[in-house]
Amino acid sequence: MQDYSSKLLENAVNQIAKLPGIGKRTAVRLALHLLKQPQEDVSAFTSAILSMRNEIFHCSCCYNISDGEQCEICNNPKRNKSLICVVQDIRDVIAIENTHAFDGVYHVLGGVISPMNGIGPNELRIKELLARLKENAVDEIILATNPNVEGEATALYISRLIKPLDVKVTRIAHGVPVGGDLEFVDEMTLSRALEGRREM
Amino acid sequence: MQDYSSKLLENAVNQIAKLPGIGKRTAVRLALHLLKQPQEDVSAFTSAILSMRNEIFHCSCCYNISDGEQCEICNNPKRNKSLICVVQDIRDVIAIENTHAFDGVYHVLGGVISPMNGIGPNELRIKELLARLKENAVDEIILATNPNVEGEATALYISRLIKPLDVKVTRIAHGVPVGGDLEFVDEMTLSRALEGRREM
Repeated sequence: MQDYSSKLLENAVNQIAKLPGIGKRTAVRLALHLLKQPQEDVSAFTSAILSMRNEIFHCSCCYNISDGEQCEICNNPKRNKSLICVVQDIRDVIAIENTHAFDGVYHVLGGVISPMNGIGPNELRIKELLARLKENAVDEIILATNPNVEGEATALYISRLIKPLDVKVTRIAHGVPVGGDLEFVDEMTLSRALEGRREM
Repeated sequence: MQDYSSKLLENAVNQIAKLPGIGKRTAVRLALHLLKQPQEDVSAFTSAILSMRNEIFHCSCCYNISDGEQCEICNNPKRNKSLICVVQDIRDVIAIENTHAFDGVYHVLGGVISPMNGIGPNELRIKELLARLKENAVDEIILATNPNVEGEATALYISRLIKPLDVKVTRIAHGVPVGGDLEFVDEMTLSRALEGRREM
């Protein structure tokens, strides 16, 4: 039990220490750093976080985060709407966008099939993906789930559902290191993986 | 330049990345973590930080942080008011309090003399310390600034100011850390530990 001689500091430290990967000692350092900043800066910090949490939409089409009803990518007329890249998470959209090697649109699943964590296909946005395929003229689906066991299983599951719809289904090439996390892959590897996609 | 497809996310990431020791990638991870939390949790997080910043006092006596006009340590009748431990920073108060080995009170300087960073004695709360010594019956001052060049210089500077006031001035002992291995201790520390040896 630490003694901070201030309940206010203690509260702030406890809240900061709830963030993933931030321990008590780092939380104290961050809290004391914030304590030394001008009031405007601290309120800019907290209001940026609050408005992110309270005002961000999920795109009604691809479920990427968005400042409006539809995200900038789905709204962009230059993006190829007949090419959909299916990813687990918003972070993967950011990672792929940063390669500048993809001009299609996305579909964010919101996770992967993971029986260990009680996540089945119904917890993911797979129904929504199938609905998109039926309503729009889609030429190709790129399955870009993470190259680990759960990601592969999810890709396989989705490819089996989509095959009967007569849509080309591809998987990003194993230029990406197996067992890794898309988020940490360098742009070069990631864009190679996109180029080298193969039909499933 | 990263593309987050949301200005709100981008703002939050930029604000989080201003924290010391937090890079862009970690900031994205933390922002997306906060995005997934319930709104109540996120507002508890931000309001804990805001009230810490806006409502914390600095103790009028020792300049430790405090929820009131005077801190809990200065207010505690069991603490020995005639023994003052002089530290650089609030963090040092927390560290010493956690030893439970000190029953005196503190004086937080707010830094150390550092000509390289343009911090002279007037930027620190040295005048306030001298005023405390004149107004109260103090038996001993423990100088507990950090054991580095600037901390030593500050301790030396303060000890010269206090000596004429006929107050005992001590410096925390230098020596080998408990639980350490002699072979990894630097020469400077080891020679201080030898000099400062005590009869068993």
